[in-house]
Amino acid sequence: MRYPQSLQELIDSFQKFPGVGPKTAERMALFTILHLKKEEVVSFSNRLVRAKESIGLCKECGALSDGDVCNICTDDSREPTLLVVEDTKDVISIERTNQYHGKYHVLNGVISPLNGVGPDDINLGKLFLRMKNEEISEVIVATNATIEGETTALYIKKMAANLPAKITRIGYGLPAGGDIEYADEITLTKSLEGRKEIT
Amino acid sequence: MRYPQSLQELIDSFQKFPGVGPKTAERMALFTILHLKKEEVVSFSNRLVRAKESIGLCKECGALSDGDVCNICTDDSREPTLLVVEDTKDVISIERTNQYHGKYHVLNGVISPLNGVGPDDINLGKLFLRMKNEEISEVIVATNATIEGETTALYIKKMAANLPAKITRIGYGLPAGGDIEYADEITLTKSLEGRKEIT
Repeated sequence: MRYPQSLQELIDSFQKFPGVGPKTAERMALFTILHLKKEEVVSFSNRLVRAKESIGLCKECGALSDGDVCNICTDDSREPTLLVVEDTKDVISIERTNQYHGKYHVLNGVISPLNGVGPDDINLGKLFLRMKNEEISEVIVATNATIEGETTALYIKKMAANLPAKITRIGYGLPAGGDIEYADEITLTKSLEGRKEIT
Repeated sequence: MRYPQSLQELIDSFQKFPGVGPKTAERMALFTILHLKKEEVVSFSNRLVRAKESIGLCKECGALSDGDVCNICTDDSREPTLLVVEDTKDVISIERTNQYHGKYHVLNGVISPLNGVGPDDINLGKLFLRMKNEEISEVIVATNATIEGETTALYIKKMAANLPAKITRIGYGLPAGGDIEYADEITLTKSLEGRKEIT
């Protein structure tokens, strides 16, 4: 016996998602059939198509948006700074802090020669255009603290050398709640370099 | 900034699945939008509704089926034995061994007083009916080796005392590839009890 065909097809679909193996896909498909209400399944089914159809990238900053231009880009009360991040998830994380009041630029990737991703493959051209055409006082590069994130930050610094905006990089160091004993050497080195006078 | 509404709704839907927390739901929703093709999303969406609508429980054995009665129940070449399992996934696992050629009975649960599940809440009544009305030579109870699985097996044995079918329980012991050093005491005890002469 195999599963009925419609169930097997549903399992196959679930298995396309990252981190979902055969067992998890099976569990999710069975959950759909045995535990979700009919209305929930229909609404999930509609939401999939609706989200896929309505969401694209903001023409200005590259963040996920349901309009041509996202809410933040159209918000004129924002300060004239750009915070450069790798993807839209990072925008959400930084917005949650309520500490940043400027605009964003989403690269949708990082420069990663090992994976064949060069500067032209990510949303960098538009960043330099914005730096030229908009009055931007500061560009804060908030790519991840990985080799690729660093490379991308250096590339931006180099390419924007002749543009008026100041280029900064977010601070490195011990994370909140972090324990010196367990921190790696790079974090500790960066944390020493980034020391500040206690005021 | 929050995610666009249609994306947030999709995240909420993914989060209903077991083992899917906010972060995983976010990743799956973003994957849907950024990496799945339009056709794949539409086909996933259709499969959800189709599976939910077409699949029900077999009227005979309780397994998931796309017809009133499943393929195994209608297969007259099967031997007149019943293998009792907790859910349809177990049927698939046992069918994969190609070692069992009888029919099945799926309880869709186990007796579990702590969770408020009594004998009447699972597919037991139908099992006793089948044992009375069909010519069944043996009922092999293959519930899991947990307290609930054991309780259910004992309950079946007790309730079927006056019926002609022989009631057996699947064997316990060291799993294939198992290491005596790491096996728990119950497994080892059962494994000693279930010893067999080497032939």
